[in-house]
Amino acid sequence: MAVRDLEQLLIEQLRDLLSAEKQITKALPRMAKAASDERLRQGFEEHLAQTEGQIVRLERAFEQLGKAARAKACVAMEGLIAEAKEHLEEDMEPSVMDAALIASAQKVEHYEIASYGTARAWAEQIGQDAVARLLQETLDEETQTDEKLSRLAESLVNRRAA
Amino acid sequence: MAVRDLEQLLIEQLRDLLSAEKQITKALPRMAKAASDERLRQGFEEHLAQTEGQIVRLERAFEQLGKAARAKACVAMEGLIAEAKEHLEEDMEPSVMDAALIASAQKVEHYEIASYGTARAWAEQIGQDAVARLLQETLDEETQTDEKLSRLAESLVNRRAA
Repeated sequence: MAVRDLEQLLIEQLRDLLSAEKQITKALPRMAKAASDERLRQGFEEHLAQTEGQIVRLERAFEQLGKAARAKACVAMEGLIAEAKEHLEEDMEPSVMDAALIASAQKVEHYEIASYGTARAWAEQIGQDAVARLLQETLDEETQTDEKLSRLAESLVNRRAA
Repeated sequence: MAVRDLEQLLIEQLRDLLSAEKQITKALPRMAKAASDERLRQGFEEHLAQTEGQIVRLERAFEQLGKAARAKACVAMEGLIAEAKEHLEEDMEPSVMDAALIASAQKVEHYEIASYGTARAWAEQIGQDAVARLLQETLDEETQTDEKLSRLAESLVNRRAA
């Protein structure tokens, strides 16, 4: 079955994102547990709740497009999470582990920023404005999470790990 | 061997990035070949030359830190490139393939933006200013490449693929 237009590509991208978000909900509790800084641990827990809301938004986008909300294995996120797990299994000073956890989390955020940004542009292009708005809401959350992680790293975690 | 401080973590991150950049130099020619838009094809070719310069900067950063420029398999980039290859093997209209290629390339750029951003902050934190400057130069290039891809998608490629 050939992919003939941007709508089909958008649906593929949303299926990839649905898989990515589900993988993230499984990884975040492990990252929260490995964090020693209290704010970082809380941040991961809050992001878990947020991610569940993002999954609901994706399901609503599928509904708008008249398609089943079916995930398609996101191999890129599998790689990102495998890398995060490699770090978790390393023998690290707790303060250094916090810096490594933030680095992994920001890589995950950036995957989502790229992916939601693209999906939003495609939805706009094909006139699916309600879908574009849903994707923009999540994109804003991911951008804020990324900035929050940068601030926590630069104000505290990196200094402690140095 | 425990990872005790940010300098050790920085060296790990640079080894991961060296692997990532080398993987990208292998993927870009295939992406250029699959592009049907001439500007996109040229963009991939220019980015290949740029990536080779980024590898040289990483080697200089290792030199500054007194460490061997040894790559360590970046499994996250393996996943990102595996996903790009999945798209390349799909049966797609050429205009839709161009949109998919840009999406894959922006995911790769965002991995690098996150990774160089983190490494630069770590280098600054430990007072390795020359290393931080090298990483900032590459970070600026990656950000510009990402913006260029967004412009090409939004001004032309997405409309053609719709």
